[in-house]
Amino acid sequence: MSRIAYVNGRYVPRAQASVSIDDRAFTFGDGVYEVCEVSAGALIEETRHLARLARSLAAVRISWPIGEESLRLVMREIVRRNRVRDGLVYLQVSRGAARRDHGFPASGVRPGLVVVARSLDPAVGAARAAAGVAVVTLPDQRWGRPDIKTLQLLPNVLAKQAAREAGAFEAWFVDRAGFVTEGASTNAWIVTPEGGLVTRQADEAILHGVTRAALIDVVGKLGLRLEERPFTPHEALGAREAFVSSATTIAMPVVSIDGQAIGGGRPGPVVAALRRAFREHAQAS
Amino acid sequence: MSRIAYVNGRYVPRAQASVSIDDRAFTFGDGVYEVCEVSAGALIEETRHLARLARSLAAVRISWPIGEESLRLVMREIVRRNRVRDGLVYLQVSRGAARRDHGFPASGVRPGLVVVARSLDPAVGAARAAAGVAVVTLPDQRWGRPDIKTLQLLPNVLAKQAAREAGAFEAWFVDRAGFVTEGASTNAWIVTPEGGLVTRQADEAILHGVTRAALIDVVGKLGLRLEERPFTPHEALGAREAFVSSATTIAMPVVSIDGQAIGGGRPGPVVAALRRAFREHAQAS
Repeated sequence: MSRIAYVNGRYVPRAQASVSIDDRAFTFGDGVYEVCEVSAGALIEETRHLARLARSLAAVRISWPIGEESLRLVMREIVRRNRVRDGLVYLQVSRGAARRDHGFPASGVRPGLVVVARSLDPAVGAARAAAGVAVVTLPDQRWGRPDIKTLQLLPNVLAKQAAREAGAFEAWFVDRAGFVTEGASTNAWIVTPEGGLVTRQADEAILHGVTRAALIDVVGKLGLRLEERPFTPHEALGAREAFVSSATTIAMPVVSIDGQAIGGGRPGPVVAALRRAFREHAQAS
Repeated sequence: MSRIAYVNGRYVPRAQASVSIDDRAFTFGDGVYEVCEVSAGALIEETRHLARLARSLAAVRISWPIGEESLRLVMREIVRRNRVRDGLVYLQVSRGAARRDHGFPASGVRPGLVVVARSLDPAVGAARAAAGVAVVTLPDQRWGRPDIKTLQLLPNVLAKQAAREAGAFEAWFVDRAGFVTEGASTNAWIVTPEGGLVTRQADEAILHGVTRAALIDVVGKLGLRLEERPFTPHEALGAREAFVSSATTIAMPVVSIDGQAIGGGRPGPVVAALRRAFREHAQAS
């Protein structure tokens, strides 16, 4: 737990950091968020995260709580004050605090902003990547716009808990047509028997992952072939490799799906190469 | 705005009522809620509201924050301290405050409870019912379990705002099959040309409205015929009457749908009779 949080204009001790019970994030899940990796003290892919934040805010019609440059400063200050070298910055914007009424509040109500940071031990992620993780598949019960990074996360919470209770690290959502959309907090990828990478196209059914986009850059640099298209759990079971991506997992090998081994139950070379290359190529800013 | 709020065990001035930025209702929309009408100082259909709360909590696996009898006492105390004669009690239970992680927190984390109340002028609702309200129809983009009364309300927020901007009071959601599910914060009803009442069956696609259930009791007492089945916007346009129901609107006549008049554009006698009978029959407790 970090020691200092930024809450609506003030840096406050984390233990006392609080928001009004009328904040619309609290009463309606009416807000959006970003999670940005911190590596060796730098904010990784910060520009892409802020571009996505702009897209999320516009999609749900919430104004910027402070200007983008000010937000960049707050993120740096939160990293500094919490002495985070490796970890993450979490930021959340809500539509503000107002008397409970579904429609938007009056124009004078200012959006709420919370920014926190915490350290993560890179050795934990590295050990997990060395062993690989298990995933389970579940029906996708999320709302119609999971491409917007909103706080509508209860289905993700329930899926992640179901995965944990099944001894898995992640749940992959499966849409009505039988295709994998993405994980509860990660994008989903496979490597075909022919060695091509497959991940779902960035449609309205998946989050447009910043790490997903950065990995696509890396795929190009490594000369690998990429197909952006849906795949089924059945195709994934026959894949050479599978993995998930997010700001905190980077590229994390999946070694089993619903209890069936993938790629012989061991992490493969493609995901290992992507993981290494990401560290070299990802933008520190 | 009420003056005193109950927040996690304490009665506090509303202006200072706050929760941790780590409350999971704030970060994940991970909570459930109830809105209970207060009429002439009494909590209307309180027993049904608490039964639904029990169902919601069980469905998302959140424990009771305090016992049901204690919660009844808090609700009464909040009504008393805020001197509410006519209005509503709002209560919200979250999975508690814990370091952000999608899966459930450790078992020691206690659920959060907020209870507030506010006064509503019954004359405002009466005037609205005398004039009737407009609704617009929109695609239903909510998650897969709107029958659970959770904080996954951003699609409802966006729909209510779209309705307001179209000069309407409510948005009716339409499912993929073309049937009305319900309103953004109300259940939807029509009166057929033959005089029968129609409202969607309480399946997983709609909230199991307490006022809906209480009105079904009233329908029986008035000797009216009820069909619990889906209806389309097209059928609604040919209906004799239409209305919406909720704890705060009771039975509110709908006089236009997507700009087309219903029942000659004036509230009809069936909804007026239901509204009167609800006041006589609804359970004060």
